[in-house]
Amino acid sequence: MHLLIDGYAGDTQRMWDRDFVHKFLEEFPATLGMNKIYGPVVLEYDAPKPEDSGVSGFVVIAESHISVHTFPERSYMNIDIFSCKAFDSQKALDRVKEQFRLQNMKTWQVDRGLEHYDPSLARPRGVREQVAGPADN
Amino acid sequence: MHLLIDGYAGDTQRMWDRDFVHKFLEEFPATLGMNKIYGPVVLEYDAPKPEDSGVSGFVVIAESHISVHTFPERSYMNIDIFSCKAFDSQKALDRVKEQFRLQNMKTWQVDRGLEHYDPSLARPRGVREQVAGPADN
Repeated sequence: MHLLIDGYAGDTQRMWDRDFVHKFLEEFPATLGMNKIYGPVVLEYDAPKPEDSGVSGFVVIAESHISVHTFPERSYMNIDIFSCKAFDSQKALDRVKEQFRLQNMKTWQVDRGLEHYDPSLARPRGVREQVAGPADN
Repeated sequence: MHLLIDGYAGDTQRMWDRDFVHKFLEEFPATLGMNKIYGPVVLEYDAPKPEDSGVSGFVVIAESHISVHTFPERSYMNIDIFSCKAFDSQKALDRVKEQFRLQNMKTWQVDRGLEHYDPSLARPRGVREQVAGPADN
């Protein structure tokens, strides 16, 4: 499952705080039962327009990832929680809302990843399964 | 805009190839007019079940990211192209399809990011704009 969150009207000090975002990404996977395999990596981005500047962070979890992009001057942020397996999306939303003190959120849920993997699409076109029939004689 | 792609029936040698995934992530942002600000970072993940193993990679671009997760044993992969601004989604799909020789794709397009930022949601609830009216006398 892939949960996409756009958060609004949050704590802009936390959105600017690389250490806070790092700690959030460090701890968040375990609260959702996910295994971190790389990161977090967190960096500040200084855009030509100040309102486009902010903090970006990434943690790779087993077969998928969690990412954060903040825009403190807009009091706006994007969070992605993409996991190969099902997770408690309400718990994830509550945690994000509480951590960044968001007053408004827009969310999308996309059914993709290993839990929605379709084996029939993984076969090259034109290849048919051979089914043995009864012998002619 | 955020474009999500699940790719099926591709080139499994390329899906296993960390150098290939790195080169793909290195070059892809520029072909879509995006500015890379960190990475790519590419790693191999050895899962308890071999069919869940594969290569994960991401590159941070200005205010957003591109990520790849491959599952060569399933001939399956997930790609995300998330940008703060509009990009040519057909060009992106064509490039992904061609690079990983995918025969089937499932795609989703989510209208989020700075181009879809809603300033009204960024104001804390309960705060009203003050509009000066005519004086009483």
